[in-house]
Amino acid sequence: MADSPNCDLRSLSPLQLFERVTEQGEKVRALKAGKAPKDEIDAAVRMLLSLKLSYKTTTGQDYQAGLPPKDLVLINNGTTKEEDEDLVDPWNVQTSNAKGVDYDKLIVRFGSSKIDTDLINRIERATGQKPHHFLRRGIFFSHRDMDQVLDAYENKKPFYLYTGRGPSSQAMHVGHLIPFMFTKWLQEVFDVPLVIQLTDDEKYLWKDMTIEKAHEYARENAKDIIACGFDINKTFIFSDLDYLGTSAGFYKNIVKVQKHVTFNQVKGIFGFTDSDCIGKISFPAIQAAPSFSSSFPQIFNGKENIQCLIPCAIDQDPYFRMTRDVAPRIGQPKPALLHSVFFPALQGAQTKMSASDPNSSIFLTDTAKQIKTKINKHAFSGGRDTIEEHRKYGGNCDVDVSIMYLTFFLEDDDRLEQLKQAYTSGELLTGELKKVLIETMQPLVAAHQERRKQVTDEIVKQFMTPRKLAFEF
Amino acid sequence: MADSPNCDLRSLSPLQLFERVTEQGEKVRALKAGKAPKDEIDAAVRMLLSLKLSYKTTTGQDYQAGLPPKDLVLINNGTTKEEDEDLVDPWNVQTSNAKGVDYDKLIVRFGSSKIDTDLINRIERATGQKPHHFLRRGIFFSHRDMDQVLDAYENKKPFYLYTGRGPSSQAMHVGHLIPFMFTKWLQEVFDVPLVIQLTDDEKYLWKDMTIEKAHEYARENAKDIIACGFDINKTFIFSDLDYLGTSAGFYKNIVKVQKHVTFNQVKGIFGFTDSDCIGKISFPAIQAAPSFSSSFPQIFNGKENIQCLIPCAIDQDPYFRMTRDVAPRIGQPKPALLHSVFFPALQGAQTKMSASDPNSSIFLTDTAKQIKTKINKHAFSGGRDTIEEHRKYGGNCDVDVSIMYLTFFLEDDDRLEQLKQAYTSGELLTGELKKVLIETMQPLVAAHQERRKQVTDEIVKQFMTPRKLAFEF
Repeated sequence: MADSPNCDLRSLSPLQLFERVTEQGEKVRALKAGKAPKDEIDAAVRMLLSLKLSYKTTTGQDYQAGLPPKDLVLINNGTTKEEDEDLVDPWNVQTSNAKGVDYDKLIVRFGSSKIDTDLINRIERATGQKPHHFLRRGIFFSHRDMDQVLDAYENKKPFYLYTGRGPSSQAMHVGHLIPFMFTKWLQEVFDVPLVIQLTDDEKYLWKDMTIEKAHEYARENAKDIIACGFDINKTFIFSDLDYLGTSAGFYKNIVKVQKHVTFNQVKGIFGFTDSDCIGKISFPAIQAAPSFSSSFPQIFNGKENIQCLIPCAIDQDPYFRMTRDVAPRIGQPKPALLHSVFFPALQGAQTKMSASDPNSSIFLTDTAKQIKTKINKHAFSGGRDTIEEHRKYGGNCDVDVSIMYLTFFLEDDDRLEQLKQAYTSGELLTGELKKVLIETMQPLVAAHQERRKQVTDEIVKQFMTPRKLAFEF
Repeated sequence: MADSPNCDLRSLSPLQLFERVTEQGEKVRALKAGKAPKDEIDAAVRMLLSLKLSYKTTTGQDYQAGLPPKDLVLINNGTTKEEDEDLVDPWNVQTSNAKGVDYDKLIVRFGSSKIDTDLINRIERATGQKPHHFLRRGIFFSHRDMDQVLDAYENKKPFYLYTGRGPSSQAMHVGHLIPFMFTKWLQEVFDVPLVIQLTDDEKYLWKDMTIEKAHEYARENAKDIIACGFDINKTFIFSDLDYLGTSAGFYKNIVKVQKHVTFNQVKGIFGFTDSDCIGKISFPAIQAAPSFSSSFPQIFNGKENIQCLIPCAIDQDPYFRMTRDVAPRIGQPKPALLHSVFFPALQGAQTKMSASDPNSSIFLTDTAKQIKTKINKHAFSGGRDTIEEHRKYGGNCDVDVSIMYLTFFLEDDDRLEQLKQAYTSGELLTGELKKVLIETMQPLVAAHQERRKQVTDEIVKQFMTPRKLAFEF
């Protein structure tokens, strides 16, 4: 490698620069470990600093070891970055703030729109139903083109819902239910068809997992999804591995998207590298295609231009930004979106729950006792160190995970407000608050388990059979 | 851009270097056109030469404008290149030699094996049939693992044939028939199932063509293929756009291949760049998957490990080198291959026929008169400039396109030998030789047209319906 670091650095991509900095860092460490002459080490350190400066100039962000530059850099189109920017993409959610990701900033960065009181009121007027507490409490906080969906709805034009899940393991946790609980409500109040994609192919591509295992997880996860109470006459659940082999319409849309997205684009959006397998590189088209009604000729009677609305967590937005970019170029309407916040880990809102860490989550298979132990042991508390201090200064609801979970799962607005006030004032102790959470989660999980037992293989098969739904198109 | 061209050049890929040389060439041209000061032009020229030298050092090849470095460089694994190396990949066949591509060199470079007399004799013994003239005349000249196929065949183990076509237009030319004529013979003498892939998705991805058009061409081309005389009970023809949506087995194999091939690999093999669409990048897996019998559960009764033999032109080998590399990693047998030479353009053997240049080809739709005119006007001749010289020195069969075409299409060995001798001795004039070719091609094309007329839409539909064939597995 040439010794003048700035030569040609301007022509390097952020990722190439990142790799240079990483290499140079390793070189410095090696020199120090090898007790190289001081002037040699100094020169290497100067070069490292110079490379880091180039990196910052190019990306607007400080170099962070192990965190290659991704989507975020490119989404921002050159506006200045703050050093403590949150990391949000389909595989990572990280923030240094205990209150969680700054969602208002995310709206600006992603270029979406805030779900404000006007929009919520309009949904109430259009449906004649009280808005779901996920809307009232800002859990679904951001959207794209929801007003257009409402325009169409008010003019009796049809639309459909599309959501999904990556079946990475048999065990789902309560956080996984959020989009499905909300989607179920949307389906009920708007009375529209719903398609649910299980990306077993994605999980096979990303994880160390056989294709058979991924496919099995898809069917197991379908049971948990069905247990949320979806209407079998209005809902089609599909595994990519199955459905791609049964629908020419789906594959045609996939290949259309694949023709209109370059490697450069997916590199920018998803941070793929040259070492990634070609399956990962082309996968975004498979998540994009269900946004187009012609992927489901059996449901939409071959009609091409039915509007799609996608409720999902905000980390999935990169897929649909890409989809919305491609849609007009293949003669299709852009899907509309409703974005939710992340469900926090028990340990705190800096990261989302993960199925791979059993203690970060309350699983849908947990017993009442496990739920109690996990909450008591792991739920991050905004309470004070001693009872005296707590009584005196009160707890901090902004970082308290029990309060956050209750915001998701306790439907009674008045009760929630009471709890928050009592906790803030110091009247309610952390142990008491956790008890409320335990008593909320235990019956919720038990009821889910009861409903899941009713979901037979036959019912799963029916949901997953491509067929006409109870709608005329 | 920095002015010192050698800084960091060693860390650039062959393609990046290629782009640098191209840019610098354009800069030099711009300076000259703009009548820039002499010293400025000289400096730019020196830099251009320096860049070209770096390119040659890295790739082992001279820079050629418009010909980016590809497969060839990487296939060779570092052995020295000759400057006049032939260019052979799925999209380009170019040589500076009027005799055509040097196939013996290609065998060494691709790492395949020559089809020698021993192998031809063994095929004759195994099948009890006189070897096809394509084998006897070296038109199918190279193979991979054909001896293993014969071992299996002699031990009564089953295998199947797989070949294909990219339906880039409605009009096929006589060169397109070569693999199908040979495949038909293989099917007859070995009595095995045959699958024929029509890559309409590939053509949609690569060409400026709608998906409907590509799909239509696939069906039209299927008629020409069926007109070669394939047995409807033993042959399955499929369009990717149709079949991918009807077979979960096919998609599963595609995604398995896609998991085991990186962008770096397809970049090396096919010369893809970051600006290519993700459809192109992942397409090689779609051409690979029919090499595995589990892509056709309806034919092979779900059996996974039936050996596959692929007859194809040598330019398709990169796809199957990749497939053979992946096969053991996904628990599948490597497909065996039989490679043909290219069918030369009427204008000479430097390049293969192309459907996009109407005068380079005899089309299957040409009238007797068009065939006569094209051969008389365009067929490159190895004859002398004057009749006197021709009589005295004789013609050159090695570069004469009429002789080449007769080698493909005139089945009578003795007659062909007579013609070659008479032409070499000067006894036979170019006009007389062309007359023989015209009289060979006219009835051949007319008979094809007659057979094609018999191929109804119903017959096409039958061939293209996924179904059990006349074999038990």
